[in-house]
Amino acid sequence: MVYPLEASAPMGDPSSGPGIAHSMSWLDEFSEAHGPAVDVVRHNLRRVERIFTEHLECELQCVNDLCARVESYRGKMLRPTLTLLSGMEASANADAEPTDQHQTLAAVVEMIHVATLVHDDVLDEAAVRRQHPTINKLRGNEAAVILGDCLISSAFHLCSTMDRPEVSRRIGQITTRVCQGELLQLHHRQDSDLDERTYFQIIERKTASLIGVACEQGAAASGADETLRQRLYDFGSKIGIAFQIQDDLLDLVGEERIVGKTLGKDLEKGKLTLPLIHHLAMASPQRREASLDLLRGLWRGDSTGPDRGAGGVGVVQLTDVKHEVRRAVESTGSIQFASERARAAVQEATRSLGALPANRVHGLLLELAQAVLSRDR
Amino acid sequence: MVYPLEASAPMGDPSSGPGIAHSMSWLDEFSEAHGPAVDVVRHNLRRVERIFTEHLECELQCVNDLCARVESYRGKMLRPTLTLLSGMEASANADAEPTDQHQTLAAVVEMIHVATLVHDDVLDEAAVRRQHPTINKLRGNEAAVILGDCLISSAFHLCSTMDRPEVSRRIGQITTRVCQGELLQLHHRQDSDLDERTYFQIIERKTASLIGVACEQGAAASGADETLRQRLYDFGSKIGIAFQIQDDLLDLVGEERIVGKTLGKDLEKGKLTLPLIHHLAMASPQRREASLDLLRGLWRGDSTGPDRGAGGVGVVQLTDVKHEVRRAVESTGSIQFASERARAAVQEATRSLGALPANRVHGLLLELAQAVLSRDR
Repeated sequence: MVYPLEASAPMGDPSSGPGIAHSMSWLDEFSEAHGPAVDVVRHNLRRVERIFTEHLECELQCVNDLCARVESYRGKMLRPTLTLLSGMEASANADAEPTDQHQTLAAVVEMIHVATLVHDDVLDEAAVRRQHPTINKLRGNEAAVILGDCLISSAFHLCSTMDRPEVSRRIGQITTRVCQGELLQLHHRQDSDLDERTYFQIIERKTASLIGVACEQGAAASGADETLRQRLYDFGSKIGIAFQIQDDLLDLVGEERIVGKTLGKDLEKGKLTLPLIHHLAMASPQRREASLDLLRGLWRGDSTGPDRGAGGVGVVQLTDVKHEVRRAVESTGSIQFASERARAAVQEATRSLGALPANRVHGLLLELAQAVLSRDR
Repeated sequence: MVYPLEASAPMGDPSSGPGIAHSMSWLDEFSEAHGPAVDVVRHNLRRVERIFTEHLECELQCVNDLCARVESYRGKMLRPTLTLLSGMEASANADAEPTDQHQTLAAVVEMIHVATLVHDDVLDEAAVRRQHPTINKLRGNEAAVILGDCLISSAFHLCSTMDRPEVSRRIGQITTRVCQGELLQLHHRQDSDLDERTYFQIIERKTASLIGVACEQGAAASGADETLRQRLYDFGSKIGIAFQIQDDLLDLVGEERIVGKTLGKDLEKGKLTLPLIHHLAMASPQRREASLDLLRGLWRGDSTGPDRGAGGVGVVQLTDVKHEVRRAVESTGSIQFASERARAAVQEATRSLGALPANRVHGLLLELAQAVLSRDR
C-alpha cells in the first residue's frame, strides 16, 4: 500500500484552497485497527489548523490575503501528527487525549516547517508545490521572503504563548540548527566531492532535527522524562532521515505529475544527494568522468528547459540531461542503495520505539514510519 | 553638530571588519556632561557585541565564516544603546548599571534588526551597506535569505535563554509586526495613490515598533511598571518614526559616498515615501502628471543605471530620473515638509520622557533623540 505522506490537494480552483478534508484524507489509509487513534488525531489536527490560521490573522487585509495562500503549502501535516501521537505514546495515562499544549506545539512546528518551504521555493526558483503555484511564482520573491519571515516570527510568538520557556529554548535551538543545515548544503552546492558523511550532516540538521523535536516535545508535553523524550527524538529524527532520502530520490526519479512539485531541482541547483554521491563513489573512473561532465555542463548553464525558451546551438535540453543522470545513477545501483539507507533509517526509528510498552498509538507510529518508505509523492 | 547614527566603518580591508572601536566612536560626539553615562553604555555595548557573536557560533566553520560577515552590518547599535539607556532611565536606583538581562535583550533586538537588514538588501538588490559589500552581493541571494533566517531564529533562541516568557512573547509579537509592516509596504509598491496615513502605518510597524520595544523592554528589565514601560515604548517608537523619515529623505537627497549604502532604492523599487507622497498631493495637476510619468517610466524599466550596461534608444539614465524626481519634490517644499514631520516626531518622543524625573541618562536620551534629525548617513 502507498501512503501519500505529503501533497494531496488536486489541481483545480486554487481559490478554494486545499481544505481540511484534503489534508487529512491520508489518515484513512492506515489499518482499521488504528481507527480510534486516527479519529483522535483527525479531531486534534482540525484544532491545530485553526490555531495555525487564527494566529496569523491581523488587522491588515493584504497580510491576511497572503497568509491565506500558505494554506496550500500545508500537506499531510506529518509533523503535527507526530507531535500529537508522540504525546499520546508518552502519556502515563493510556487514554489521555492531546491537550492545548500539544495542539499549540503542533501548530508551532508546522508553521516553522511551512516557513522553510516558502523560503526553499524562493531559493529553488520552484513554480509548483503540492500541485499549486508557489508564493514566489504567484506574488514574487520579495513577498515570499517576507512572508517566510512572518511565519518564523509568528511561530516563535505562538510558542511563547505556551509560557514554557524550556520549549521556546528548544524550538529556537532546533530552528537555528535547521538553518545551519541549509547553509551547510549551500556551502557544498556544486561540490562534486561532497561525501556521504557531510550529506547526512546536512539532512540531519535541515530535516531530521525538526521532525525529531516535533516528537520529543510532544512527549515532553505529556510529562515524559529525559529518556523517553530522547527515544522519541531519535524516532522522529530517523523518520526524518528516511523522509529526506525518499524526497531526494523522488526529485531524481519521481514523476512531476504525481509528486505535485517541480522536480530535478536538486540537480539543477547543484545539490548532490545520496544516489549521486554513491554513484560518483562507485562508478568506474571513465563513467564517473562522464557523469561529472554532465553535471558541470548543467551547472555552467549549457542546458535549457522548456520554461526558458528555445536553446541555441550547443545547448541541450535540461530534461535530457536529467534523464542521462538518472540512467547513470541507476547503472551503479545507486537508487537501490539510497532506498536501502532509507529503509535502515526506518528500522532504527522502529528500534527507538521498540523498547516502549505497547499502547493504542504504538502500532500506528510504527505503520507511519513504514509509510515514509513507500510514498511516491 | 552632526551625530552619525548609523554607518561608520571606513571603506578599506573588509577582512578586518568594522570592529568595536568603529561602531562606538559615535558615542564620543555626545556632550561631555554625559561622559559617565556614555562610559557605562560603551562598556556594556562591548558585552552586547560579545553575546551577539558568541551566540551565533556553532560547530560548522562555513556557518561561522558567513556569520562573521554580518559584523559589517552592525552600525552604531542604536537599538542596543536605547535598551541599555532605557534600563538605566527606568531603574529606581539612580546608580544602577545594566544587568545581564539588559545586555542579552540588547543583543536580541540588534540581531533581529540585522536579520531585517540582511533580507532588506536581498529585496532591494542592494550592493553596498555601511560602506561594505552586502551579503547578497558577496555570497548570493540564497546565502543571504538563509543567513537572515538563521539570525531571526538565533535571536528568538537567545531571547528564550532569559527564561522570561513575557519577554519572548513581546519580542515575537513585535517582530511579527515588523514583518507585517514590510508586507504592507510591498502591497503598496508602485502605488502612486499611497497616502500619508498608510505611509505612517508602514513605518510604525517596520521600523518604529522594534525601536519602541527596545526601550520598553529595557525599562521592563529594570522593573518598570506598565506606565513607565509605555512611556519608553512611545519614546522609542517616535524616535523610530523620525529615524525612518530621515532614512527616506537620505535615500532621496543623500550622498551615496557619505551615507555608505546604495541610494535611490526606494524610487527604483516603487516605495513611495513621505516627501513624494506630499509632493503628489500638493503639486499642480500638470506637475503631478509629469512626476507620475517619471515614476511610471522608472517602474516600467525605461531607464538604465551604470550597473546595467548601456541603455538603448529611448532609454534614460536612472540617475537622471532620480535627479528629476528630486527637483520636482523640492519644488513643492516636500523635503522641508518631511523634515518637519521628523522634527515633530522627536518632539513627541521628548514629551514622552518629559514627565519622568531627571536622572543621569535623561539628558543623554534627549540628546540622542535630537541626533536622529541631524544625521547625514
